[in-house]
Amino acid sequence: MSFEKLDLEPLFAKIDELKPAFIDRLRRSIAIPSVSSDEGLRPKVVEMAAFLVNELTTLGFTDIQLKDLGKQPPPVSNPDLLLPPIVLARFGNDEKKKTVLVYGHYDVQPAGLEDGWASEPFEMRHDEQNDILYGRGSTDDKGPVMGWLNVIEAHNALGLELPVNLVVCFEGMEESGSLGLEDLIAREAKQYFNGVDAVCISDNYWLGTSKPVLTYGLRGCNYYQVAISGPGADLHSGIFGGVVAEPMTDLVQVLSSLVSSDGKILVPGIDEMVAELTPEEDALYDDIDFSVEELQAASGSKTALYDDKKDILKHRWRYPSLSIHGVEGAFSAAGAKTVIPAKVIGKFSIRTVPDIESAKLDSLVFAHVTKAFKQLNSKNQLKVELIHDGDYWKSDPFNESFTAASKATEHVWNVKPDFTREGGSIPITLTFEKELGTQVLLLPMGRGDDGAHSINEKLNVSNYINGCKTLGGYLHYYGRQ
Amino acid sequence: MSFEKLDLEPLFAKIDELKPAFIDRLRRSIAIPSVSSDEGLRPKVVEMAAFLVNELTTLGFTDIQLKDLGKQPPPVSNPDLLLPPIVLARFGNDEKKKTVLVYGHYDVQPAGLEDGWASEPFEMRHDEQNDILYGRGSTDDKGPVMGWLNVIEAHNALGLELPVNLVVCFEGMEESGSLGLEDLIAREAKQYFNGVDAVCISDNYWLGTSKPVLTYGLRGCNYYQVAISGPGADLHSGIFGGVVAEPMTDLVQVLSSLVSSDGKILVPGIDEMVAELTPEEDALYDDIDFSVEELQAASGSKTALYDDKKDILKHRWRYPSLSIHGVEGAFSAAGAKTVIPAKVIGKFSIRTVPDIESAKLDSLVFAHVTKAFKQLNSKNQLKVELIHDGDYWKSDPFNESFTAASKATEHVWNVKPDFTREGGSIPITLTFEKELGTQVLLLPMGRGDDGAHSINEKLNVSNYINGCKTLGGYLHYYGRQ
Repeated sequence: MSFEKLDLEPLFAKIDELKPAFIDRLRRSIAIPSVSSDEGLRPKVVEMAAFLVNELTTLGFTDIQLKDLGKQPPPVSNPDLLLPPIVLARFGNDEKKKTVLVYGHYDVQPAGLEDGWASEPFEMRHDEQNDILYGRGSTDDKGPVMGWLNVIEAHNALGLELPVNLVVCFEGMEESGSLGLEDLIAREAKQYFNGVDAVCISDNYWLGTSKPVLTYGLRGCNYYQVAISGPGADLHSGIFGGVVAEPMTDLVQVLSSLVSSDGKILVPGIDEMVAELTPEEDALYDDIDFSVEELQAASGSKTALYDDKKDILKHRWRYPSLSIHGVEGAFSAAGAKTVIPAKVIGKFSIRTVPDIESAKLDSLVFAHVTKAFKQLNSKNQLKVELIHDGDYWKSDPFNESFTAASKATEHVWNVKPDFTREGGSIPITLTFEKELGTQVLLLPMGRGDDGAHSINEKLNVSNYINGCKTLGGYLHYYGRQ
Repeated sequence: MSFEKLDLEPLFAKIDELKPAFIDRLRRSIAIPSVSSDEGLRPKVVEMAAFLVNELTTLGFTDIQLKDLGKQPPPVSNPDLLLPPIVLARFGNDEKKKTVLVYGHYDVQPAGLEDGWASEPFEMRHDEQNDILYGRGSTDDKGPVMGWLNVIEAHNALGLELPVNLVVCFEGMEESGSLGLEDLIAREAKQYFNGVDAVCISDNYWLGTSKPVLTYGLRGCNYYQVAISGPGADLHSGIFGGVVAEPMTDLVQVLSSLVSSDGKILVPGIDEMVAELTPEEDALYDDIDFSVEELQAASGSKTALYDDKKDILKHRWRYPSLSIHGVEGAFSAAGAKTVIPAKVIGKFSIRTVPDIESAKLDSLVFAHVTKAFKQLNSKNQLKVELIHDGDYWKSDPFNESFTAASKATEHVWNVKPDFTREGGSIPITLTFEKELGTQVLLLPMGRGDDGAHSINEKLNVSNYINGCKTLGGYLHYYGRQ
């Protein structure tokens, strides 16, 4: 290796020894269905926060605080619904040491057997033959969150001093737009988070399935909904079909004006905001370990829009995309129902990249949707709104924090990581960077085929355990600098 | 009145006297959530058949049979799912009397508080101030089915002889395409249904809210689904957005090619099959008691596609329409989920009229959808299929059966009924006519604003009780002829 290796073997051996306890910790956390987008499951999200407080207390964290974020803003069914709290805690408070803030989220995406899961999503299943842990949140983001706790448990068990002060910030609304977190970070920047030198976020994935990566860029995400309403209630299509304006007819027309089947965004003005591709940037994509076949395997299909590795990486990392997620209010079950839905709400989002301005994007989208609806000359009503947004982010992959993470990764995995960007968004990355004025590092634990947000979400045991070593190793290399 | 009135006052007085018992019978039937389109509720549909058998037995019906229809054909989640039985029974078997077959259905549309019902849909709510009965199935079609039972109870209580032999045929799959009924009618035409002189169906509604009608025409309904699939599982739109072909993108394009916002069907070749409007037919619409305002009130909106009464009636009765009902497999809940759905199924149906050929319509739809998808040049997969179909129907409104029903209606309501057609479909009307070679009469009980298939479905008590009198009166006027 091209750098001075630290002696981390005792720590790594202890992590290996504690593997059964670490797997059990993940199992217990997956058992709590902390789905932030389901208002009915909000008590479970709060229960997950209590679970973390209990673990942090047991491990010797101090100054543990549950930050109340107040009521969830509209649109929401229950206007009195409280946001889940943000969990803050410290481990160590030595002025001579650097301070690392680690962020993770304890909420998860919705999941149910009816979506096609092979096993109950909230009961962790350990496939011992392939050494894989299945369950909602295994990789996104309970695995990494438990990883940080595991690192402390291993240090405690060894009596080994942590080389840095650690501050943890765990939120419960990441899958629902991180409501309230941005304000909290701003409020605590000079309070709880005072003195933080670096932020480390483990909430993304390797590009592929075999080579670790460090991530220095993310796309943003602006999520919109288009509501079209007409009749006062759902109608019988026999009685009213052909004589009233149907909201669903209008909605599919509007949605069909957004994006073409080859992925081209049809909303005018967006392409013009995208940063130009320089020859230097273009060359960067040559060396990344990735292939079209990996994409096809990860998607479980032969539906890649591009045949070339570089095109795929560019469209995932540095070009925007528009996805239509679904329709609320229409018939959505199996079988046949002859209904004219009275109000239908189309949901779509745009992944954003440098140099798209979020507010300008919103106005382009609103103008386009309004125009498309107006052209229909319909008697129905239109309402288009932004549900949540989060900016894109791009960092310097050669700063101190990335360098430490690169060493730790190479130490654990015996291979230099690829430096990648991500198609997904972790809006809070940018907020930490801006509000704390620090370097932010994305240090992923899971693989590209883990199925975050999908059925049968998983985390390989090797990624979980080596991930713990990498997180711990990062603290040691970073603390040493 | 222009006809000889029969002395039906004792019968009508008994019906008034038994009102509390009749309302209670409807309440007990609504309490059974016999939703035929929900496979999980199939046992409740079967329970509703048992409820009817119990009532029929108590009332003195004979030869009660539960006709087994075997397994439900695909598409179905549980391949072993049994169809609910058809309930047959007789009351009287006098060769000197005519025989009337009455048809109704004991299954209902789905309903839930979450759809916006003001009260639990399967607990009948009696709004005493307005004398209205609310509940799923109140008007469609448990009210009319209970109505026939009530007529027999009133005769029994009076010791009054029924002027005809009655045969009842109650099915449990009407809201799901009447699977199995057509074959059963063909099988029983010369068996159980041998000797039937007329068929009476009470499963539609007045055109408006104040004037009774008799119905001599119905639109048909062909229900289709378009499935588009790509990825092996749902994907994260951050990771895969912009690099894979998205099924939902293709689906909204295909659905947007079906119908325009002014209600015009865009599938080529359908308009050419519609019977020409003659001046004579055009004149018929002049006298019907209806107004644009009634349509606006019934739809709870100002979204009528036409400003003229005649245009509305023609587009409801004699022109086809296409409604898009919803999407299965996409995100359909409240809130925001950043998913790329792996497989989405669009549902739509076309209401058919003379002289549309059902099979030719299917091939036009399949060809259009296939062409629209092919033009997208997508790597996803398309599958378009017919879920169920039912032909349109048109009868002679001056035959014996309609004449008897007209007299009974005028006797009860003191007004001559309008002769109308319907936009909805009762496919089985045509089957009875064809297989039994008899006149079929549609004799509605409920009003145009009852909200069949919608939330807060209701039946006014006056319609329920006067409806019982009209059903009973019809049997007497018809038996006398």
